[in-house]
Amino acid sequence: MNSESYRVQAGKKISLADWSTKGHAGLTKEEGQVLLAPLLEELAEWQERLYAENQQALLIVLQARDAGGKDGVVKKVIGAFNPNGVHISNFKVPSEEERAHDFLWRVHAQAPRKGMIGVFNRSHYEDALVTRVYKLIDVVTAEQRLMHIRHFEDMLSSNGTRILKFYLHISQEEQKRRLQARLDEPGKNWKFNPGDLKDREHWDQFTEAYEAALSTTSDDAPWFVIPADQKWFRDLLISKIVLETLKAMNPQYPAITYDLKTIEIK
Amino acid sequence: MNSESYRVQAGKKISLADWSTKGHAGLTKEEGQVLLAPLLEELAEWQERLYAENQQALLIVLQARDAGGKDGVVKKVIGAFNPNGVHISNFKVPSEEERAHDFLWRVHAQAPRKGMIGVFNRSHYEDALVTRVYKLIDVVTAEQRLMHIRHFEDMLSSNGTRILKFYLHISQEEQKRRLQARLDEPGKNWKFNPGDLKDREHWDQFTEAYEAALSTTSDDAPWFVIPADQKWFRDLLISKIVLETLKAMNPQYPAITYDLKTIEIK
Repeated sequence: MNSESYRVQAGKKISLADWSTKGHAGLTKEEGQVLLAPLLEELAEWQERLYAENQQALLIVLQARDAGGKDGVVKKVIGAFNPNGVHISNFKVPSEEERAHDFLWRVHAQAPRKGMIGVFNRSHYEDALVTRVYKLIDVVTAEQRLMHIRHFEDMLSSNGTRILKFYLHISQEEQKRRLQARLDEPGKNWKFNPGDLKDREHWDQFTEAYEAALSTTSDDAPWFVIPADQKWFRDLLISKIVLETLKAMNPQYPAITYDLKTIEIK
Repeated sequence: MNSESYRVQAGKKISLADWSTKGHAGLTKEEGQVLLAPLLEELAEWQERLYAENQQALLIVLQARDAGGKDGVVKKVIGAFNPNGVHISNFKVPSEEERAHDFLWRVHAQAPRKGMIGVFNRSHYEDALVTRVYKLIDVVTAEQRLMHIRHFEDMLSSNGTRILKFYLHISQEEQKRRLQARLDEPGKNWKFNPGDLKDREHWDQFTEAYEAALSTTSDDAPWFVIPADQKWFRDLLISKIVLETLKAMNPQYPAITYDLKTIEIK
């Protein structure tokens, strides 16, 4: 399971049809679950170092179609962290106040502070995706927004925030199965949103919009296309990539600037 | 283990010396751990209902002396929830901007939205505790702030936010043990803050300040004094109280206003 093979190469035009939704790197579900448990423990350990060091931040962006599994990733992978060091932002349809500002205004306010792991459950990318599909903005404006996003993420990176972006890639059939489950299983009814069906009718336009976004914004803040039809593999691969990134950031416990031995607690 | 017996009665002047730091309700550590696991699962289930209902919020306020276990509660109890439905706020020394406003300004901004569980790791109470002990404000101002806090919490309650406040009650000896461990164990060194020793020297003044706060602000937003010398009991008791509260709030999955059977996913 080589993380790099799921990474979108900077500036290379991609076609999502070339990317598997069902990939499992030759693992069975049972093997994957055995591998996941120690990864989650290691994630928590490296998070403590990040928090203690208090010099760098990690921002994880989750994008997917409806029922793509964003909430599942938050529950399973992000749930492994100490909640004290995690800040999750859910970006919904912008409010009137938010719409009165530039599209990055509300996003910037949610950027993680040093020592923290920030999670964007949906993100600024929606402003170049859903708006593009429904022609609220034209293609030129959408492309311009992607440029502004690149510049914004570049600025965050320069200031100590590492960024990882995951597109949870599900097939049209798998989405159908999951939406149908929300209709069929009473415990899941509340998750069903008729609006999701409208997005589903625009499947191909969303594909195009995602391809444009992924192809042009995968530099220092890389995109990974995660095969997400199988939840266990999705969680495993994301955990692995986040862990590798935390290790590469290599946060250190802060140096103690005084002699601990001279301190007496009365 | 009757939760009510740990609750501060409204308007009754309390003396913390009367409250145990070591209580364990007759349970052994092993028994407590057996009881905790299913409680944490139930907590997650009730949180999903709260989130799905999207009509009420729960605010959990954690206050304690240094090393009292606030971070431990966040990790263990709050960590049981789906992170997507939790918003944790850490209130540190106010910034210049924050100090330029009234003391509730930054706090109000962090109030949980409907469907969410908000956690204040330290809170607006610091502004009537630490400021009082170090005479940054006089006693009259401190009492006035407690009144404003009561009114503020009353307003939140009227608008659908249930509030639970936990004072993690540790003994002076237990604090010494925990601070000493931060000096002695390299992996814990980063948690040591020399400023904690200064607060420790003011132990009795903090006790007085806490007694004043707990005695006068335990109406609809009750305080619980949690015996916290033993971490396992602290976590168990808080889990139990939070679960009882969630059940009493009785959140319901939203009613579906259309006929699910007529929907066909193409």
